[in-house]
Parts: sequence; structure tokens; C-alpha cells
Amino acid sequence: MDIQQISGGITAPKGFLAAGVCCGLKTVGNDLAIIYSQEPCVAAAVFTSNRFQAAPVSVSKQHLASASAFHAIVANSGCANCATGEQGIRDAQAMAEITAAFLNIPEDSILVASTGKIGTFLSMDKIKAGIRDALSTLNKEGGLAAAEAILTTDSVPKQVAVKLVIQGKQVIIGGIAKGAGMIAPNMATMLAFLTTDAMLSKELLDKMFRNAVNSSFNSITIDGDTSTNDTAAILANGASGVVLNESDLDVFQAGLNHICLELATMIVRDAEGATKLLKIHIKNAPNQDMARTIGLSIANSTLVKCALFGADPNWGRILCAIGNAGIDIDLGDIDVYVGQMQLVKNSCAWEFDHAEAHRILSMNEVELTVDLKQGDHEAVVLGCDITTEYVGFNAHYST
Amino acid sequence: MDIQQISGGITAPKGFLAAGVCCGLKTVGNDLAIIYSQEPCVAAAVFTSNRFQAAPVSVSKQHLASASAFHAIVANSGCANCATGEQGIRDAQAMAEITAAFLNIPEDSILVASTGKIGTFLSMDKIKAGIRDALSTLNKEGGLAAAEAILTTDSVPKQVAVKLVIQGKQVIIGGIAKGAGMIAPNMATMLAFLTTDAMLSKELLDKMFRNAVNSSFNSITIDGDTSTNDTAAILANGASGVVLNESDLDVFQAGLNHICLELATMIVRDAEGATKLLKIHIKNAPNQDMARTIGLSIANSTLVKCALFGADPNWGRILCAIGNAGIDIDLGDIDVYVGQMQLVKNSCAWEFDHAEAHRILSMNEVELTVDLKQGDHEAVVLGCDITTEYVGFNAHYST
Repeated sequence: MDIQQISGGITAPKGFLAAGVCCGLKTVGNDLAIIYSQEPCVAAAVFTSNRFQAAPVSVSKQHLASASAFHAIVANSGCANCATGEQGIRDAQAMAEITAAFLNIPEDSILVASTGKIGTFLSMDKIKAGIRDALSTLNKEGGLAAAEAILTTDSVPKQVAVKLVIQGKQVIIGGIAKGAGMIAPNMATMLAFLTTDAMLSKELLDKMFRNAVNSSFNSITIDGDTSTNDTAAILANGASGVVLNESDLDVFQAGLNHICLELATMIVRDAEGATKLLKIHIKNAPNQDMARTIGLSIANSTLVKCALFGADPNWGRILCAIGNAGIDIDLGDIDVYVGQMQLVKNSCAWEFDHAEAHRILSMNEVELTVDLKQGDHEAVVLGCDITTEYVGFNAHYST
Repeated sequence: MDIQQISGGITAPKGFLAAGVCCGLKTVGNDLAIIYSQEPCVAAAVFTSNRFQAAPVSVSKQHLASASAFHAIVANSGCANCATGEQGIRDAQAMAEITAAFLNIPEDSILVASTGKIGTFLSMDKIKAGIRDALSTLNKEGGLAAAEAILTTDSVPKQVAVKLVIQGKQVIIGGIAKGAGMIAPNMATMLAFLTTDAMLSKELLDKMFRNAVNSSFNSITIDGDTSTNDTAAILANGASGVVLNESDLDVFQAGLNHICLELATMIVRDAEGATKLLKIHIKNAPNQDMARTIGLSIANSTLVKCALFGADPNWGRILCAIGNAGIDIDLGDIDVYVGQMQLVKNSCAWEFDHAEAHRILSMNEVELTVDLKQGDHEAVVLGCDITTEYVGFNAHYST
């Protein structure tokens, strides 16, 4: 399929402007981002599954339910606006109201997001000044500044864009993200914002975006903790002039998947204190959900993560994590490989070269394959190791 | 209730003998234990919920289902006999057969258990010699040697006994356990063996034992990994002459609970690399299962465990873990306390003295109370911190 990765991020698609500014919520760096389309957009979003939801998550859900046209996303770092009660809701609403007033658009055409410390209130004076500042600097090159403004403990901004050719025309999808690289002390949140100049129905965008999120952001794990603020949202403004037909959906889905998987991989690579990316490929499962659940059980096992850190071919821990996934299938016939090297055959010990396995596990990207021999579905899950640095950082980085 | 803790363990109840010997499965120390009652016993047992089950777990389950009278438990450390296929099953059966032949009792009157390395076969020559040796040294003071023989990475043997007065007579319950202090590299397993000289029906023993296990061994967590070999079993031989009546059940249940909770607490205290015991009290839940699930979600959160290690009053991570427990209740009204100090009120930030909270969290036993205000049930869950030592040990202790 014709998917070409291009430079840039959320301002690569036609008709999107962005800005990232510093309004003083963090001690250093940009901390307020706005993404804007003058053309009304169709929007879709996926939010945290944590039963505690931050105020901006509640407000954005309301707006998604009530409005049919969207113009902007406003996001801040430095404060999660979570565990802030009614005041927090009012503050999240005010973020949208202030932006709407400046732009003369309905307030429910705006999605809001926050990331940072839990249990502190937004400084609304700073937010208001930041929004004014950001709106006055909205521009076509502002995607990177916006990507910087949503970071907390990430070490690098994360953006990606792809160009598709649909109906003979150019369609672009772009995205930025911040990591759950760690959910730092009272810091939280995976944020991802995507833009595209294609046009499609809300129902279709929602369905395709969820597909992409499931095989990317929902298939990565750093430490198994889902934050209170996690938000992935997409705006589609149609500025390319392309209205997607049934026959265009495969290529658009592939483009969406590419953006989401690239951003998700960047997040795992930037995981706090981690030294290795673990790519777990679950093959021949009864269905994709089971495959993903088993992959996440392995990726979330503290003992597997320790073994990965130590480059120890400790396949007993892998079988143990599979058995703990809560999946009711026959586990008697499993093969496990690290790279091309088989560690387990038919769920039993298998002779292998420990030194070579250690060498494979010492690389900074490790591929683990689990063949369940129970069907023909598969999933890929991304994880990382746990390190002494991670524990030390998360223990001693005091609030 | 009249529950008096006394010295000793599994040989404290009348009619039980035990031995622990070294047969060479481990490089040092006792590695084979036998617990024996000449009087036939009623038995009950609870096994790992891991879908991968070691061979001795399968064999013991068969024996529990087929036999009505039990005489012995045979357990080894140094080899888990897991991921060993058909050969593993034959070896586990042989452990029972060898013991049965020496004692001239039915082989299904014997329960077997193994702990140690996954994916290696039992050395049956050593097992046979060990069983012969242990049977020749069975004695009334052998409980501690048996407690030593089931250890892997534990630093100390764990045993406890209580004396009850029922129907004017003395009834004793004893127990030994080994830790899931870590599920060490290819090491595994929580084992607990209890004995009592009371007599009761199999159904009643099963029910009461499960009650005790739920609020003890099933309410502790070191790292969230359930091993392939976990086994808790109890033998009741009636040697006290006391057949339990309906009116005796409360005191017997209290005694059972005491033994199980003491052993469980010893296991957590002996957790590899841990510096602190975390006692989580979930109050005012809709039911006990929900309370336990929420407590375990907190105790298993890597970020909560890191914060505990660093003595950081990071209540945002606690709320986050509650929200991730997958429990469908209103979370808007939660209070959180560390010791007597309130950190969260009605799910919102609450002013507290950070220095004092840090001091409370710096003690080697920390009590966390979560008041859900959603009912009148409660649960206590025990956990521990995660330390740089834990990660380092589990990374570099190579197989």
C-alpha cells in the first residue's frame, strides 16, 4: 500500500495549525499546546479505562457526546487536574470556554487534556495567559512546539506523519504523543493527538481510530498502571478534498495504524529507566483479544521484566506469566522463541545455547515469539525491562 | 476466644511425625520433607490458579479426588518438576508410590509437592534415597527440619502452632510454609502444610481451610506472579479425640485463620529484597471480594511499591491503583490514611504534613487504610515494597 512517512506531525495535514508555549505550569519548557483547524472537524477519542478519571477526561467526553463539529484541542502539562473535584471540572470547562471565546467558536467544539501532578488545581491565570499566547502564535510549523508542550518526564518530543494517495489525491495523517514512559510520581498519562485532512463520518472515524489504538497504544505497557488522564484523540477536517469511500478504508486504516504504532513504539523506547524494548509476538491464538491479553501478561510480569534487564533466558517466568493471563485455553503445546532461538517446545524444556540466548537478550531490542498452536489469530505487544534505575527514580523522586 | 500460640509447627498436634533430610537436590541444606500420621487423616488443599500446573499439583489433585483417607505429605525443594511433560507426571506419581511402598499404605493417601527450578527433571535416585532416609528419621521433633527442607530462597524456616480448647479438650493446629518471598529465577512457589488433631468432615475441612486461605495466603502478594506449584494443604487426624460440633466451628476457624495469617505474614516479611511490610486495610466495601481485589491492585502496583520503598506519601498512585482494580463502584468518596494520618478526603487532595507522612512511611511496617464508604465489608491485604535490590537480584541471578 502507498504509505509514505514524511517529516512533521500534527500540522503536516492541510488546514491544521498548532502552537506550544510556556505559561509557567512547569518549571521549565513549553507546557500549553493548542491544535486548531478553522474548518470544522469530525472527532474521535479513546480515554483511560481507569475508573478514576481526571476532570479534562470528563469534560472532553461530554463535548464528544454533544457536539458534531470540532475545531481545537487544548492540552497542558505540569498539572493533571485530577482528584480536584467540582473545582477541577469547572477549571477544565474554563480551558475550553477561554479558548472558545478567543476564537469565537462553540466551547463544546474543543477537546481538553491535562497531564502532570495529581491533586493540585490548575492555575487558571497561567492557563488563560497561555491560551492567549498560544492562539497568537498558531502556525503551520507549530506541531513540534505543541509536541514539546505536552511532555512531562519524556526525554524527547514524539511526532510522526504519513502521506497517503487516495482517489489520486494526497491525504496526510499526523500525530504527536507523550509517554507513559513512566507514570512518574504523581505524574501520569499517555496523550496522543492525531490530525488528518481526510473526511469521513464520525462513526467510521471512531471505529477506525479504535482499531488503530487497540493494536498500538492499547498494546504497550511500561508498568501496568493505566493513568487517570490517558487520552488519544483525532480530528479530521477534510481539507484534502478527499471524502473516503469504502474502497479507500484499507489504506487509510493502514496509515492510521502506522502513525499510532510509531508513536506507541516511541513511547516505549523512551520509557523511564528502561534499557530495552521487548516486542512480544503471540501467534496462533483463538482470537486477537486473547493473544493481546497473553502478550500483556508477559510484558507486565515484574519477573519477566527483571530477567530481560539481566538478559536471562528465563523461560519458566514466561510460561508462568502465560498461565497467569486468565485465559481458558489448553497450554500444553506452547513454543517460545527469543529471536530465532527456540527456548521451549510443546510447553517443555528444550535444549538451547544459553550463551547465545544471553547474547540475543543483551540487545536493546528483543523479539519474543509465543506460538500457542490454538488458532490463527495474532497480536504484537510492546514492553520494556524494569531496571534498578526505574525503581530508584520512582522511589526517590519525591512529591 | 481461647487461642493460644504455642511453640512448634506441624508436629505440635498429636499423632503427627515429620522429617527433613538432605538428598542432594539443592547444593546445600535439607531438601526433602515428609509429614506423616499413622492415623488416617481427612485432607483439604488449595492449589495455584496459574493455568500452568506443575506435575505434583496434578497428581495431588487426583489423589484428593480419589482417596478418602490420607497419611502423608511428601515435598521436595530444588526442583519444581514443572514443564516436564509426561515424565514429570510419572516422577510425581513415583514420589507417592515409593513412600507408599515403604509405609505399606495406598499411594493415593499421599500428597506430593515440589518447589525449585522449572524445566528440570527430578533425580529419582536422590528422591528415593531421600524418602527412605526421611522415613527412617520421622519423629515428633521433626517439624522444623521439614520446614527447612521446603525452603528455596527464604532466609528463615517458617512454622507456627496454636492450642485451642474445644469440648474441654486440647486441640492443636500447626503449620509450616515457604515463601513466595520472591519467585526466584526459575524458582517458584508458595507452599504451606498444616496439621491438626481435630476431626471433622472432609467437606467442612475443605470449606474452613478455603476461608482461612482466602484471608491469608490469597491476600498476600510479593510481585503479582502466581507460581505453577503453589500448594496449601491440611491433614486432620482426630488424635485429640475431639470431633468438631457445629458450636466448635468458630473457634476452630479462628485457630486456622491465625495459623494461615501468621505464616502468610512471615512470607511477606521474608520477601526477597523487600524492606517493608505493607498492611492494606480496605474498609466499607460492598463485599469482601471487592475489598480484597482493590487491596491487591494497590499492593501489586509497581509505582505504589516504588513509592513505599522511597517513603513517599504518593496518594495519587494509590487512587490510580484503586481505579485500575476493575471494580465497578462509585469512587468519588474515598478516604485514604497512612497510619492515623489522612492523605485523601472524598477522593480529593487533603492538606497533610508531608514530613510526618514520610516518617510514618519510613517504618518497616506501614498501615494503609482505604475507606470506600460503599458498604460494610472489609479485607486486609499484605504486600511489600519493590527495591533496587529485588530488581538487581532477579535480573542477575542467572539460570
